[in-house]
Amino acid sequence: MREEIVTAALDQFHRRGYHAAAVKDITDAAGVPKGSFYNHFDSKEDLAVVVLERYGASRRLEDLADPGTPPLDRLRAHFAFLRDDVVRHGYQRGCLYGNFGAEIVDHMDTVRDAVRGSFETWAGLVEATLAEAQRTGAIRAGLDPAVTAGFLLNAWEGTLIRARTDRSPAAFEAFLTTVFDTLLAPA
Amino acid sequence: MREEIVTAALDQFHRRGYHAAAVKDITDAAGVPKGSFYNHFDSKEDLAVVVLERYGASRRLEDLADPGTPPLDRLRAHFAFLRDDVVRHGYQRGCLYGNFGAEIVDHMDTVRDAVRGSFETWAGLVEATLAEAQRTGAIRAGLDPAVTAGFLLNAWEGTLIRARTDRSPAAFEAFLTTVFDTLLAPA
Repeated sequence: MREEIVTAALDQFHRRGYHAAAVKDITDAAGVPKGSFYNHFDSKEDLAVVVLERYGASRRLEDLADPGTPPLDRLRAHFAFLRDDVVRHGYQRGCLYGNFGAEIVDHMDTVRDAVRGSFETWAGLVEATLAEAQRTGAIRAGLDPAVTAGFLLNAWEGTLIRARTDRSPAAFEAFLTTVFDTLLAPA
Repeated sequence: MREEIVTAALDQFHRRGYHAAAVKDITDAAGVPKGSFYNHFDSKEDLAVVVLERYGASRRLEDLADPGTPPLDRLRAHFAFLRDDVVRHGYQRGCLYGNFGAEIVDHMDTVRDAVRGSFETWAGLVEATLAEAQRTGAIRAGLDPAVTAGFLLNAWEGTLIRARTDRSPAAFEAFLTTVFDTLLAPA
């Protein structure tokens, strides 16, 4: 029953947002009695933290560390995978990290800690990929991999917001062109 | 009374989010009876569109077109102004365009149109600034001003999410360093 609640909550939070999805909406979607919710979770906020973990596991971050593919190709494929997921859902949903970051981190410290940790894990993998690409001369020599990794993730989160607002791939194209053809390109 | 509602709604939406701020919270904050709301607005969504206009007027976009300052200096000052506003509010609130873009544009077409229009106006001013900087050789020659302007705004919106999540200026520093020292820097 706990699993069903987490699965329904991921869909509801991702599609509608944290505040728009009430506990009753989530238990209804899960097909469980509302009263059962508090047998499994201390609060909706507690559920949000579990949902973030579940969401993180769906993002194929492990592909960023695949030794069988050149690092710059892995990075391109990573953003293409994330883009395709948004396009397939009709430019809705976006990234749960960014959505929670925009909607609720100011008010909920446990969610804020979970989002921050998610960004750090993700940024660490991108940083390692950039450092590897830099050692092989595939990206610009002078870039700081840690600073650039953070910048890329942040730029990606804003790109998602714009793609959803426009319901268009233009923001994704601007990201990929600007990042891979100019920012990362060896001088 | 309409003005008081708009002022209170801008504060409530910006600080708490669209769904977290109920109409009654807004009318209470404005010091007006809840029943008066629908004398002035057709819906909460209608109010959100008016609030976006009011918010846009506070962002000093006109400074981007100031002929007395070199274009690249204007662009730096613009992002520094926006950053300082977020830091002064304790890394809370962020940008109302991005917040609405993350929380509600998927579900409300009139708000989506208003956010899209706000981004387009802003991007047009940044594009003109970049084109002017490019003509004077102050930025990289090969960049497309329209694509780059879109990318910068999107990157900025994600930067705000990260700065709020971390309650730290690191995301702002990564944005300013990466954009001005590498991306825009003449080759």
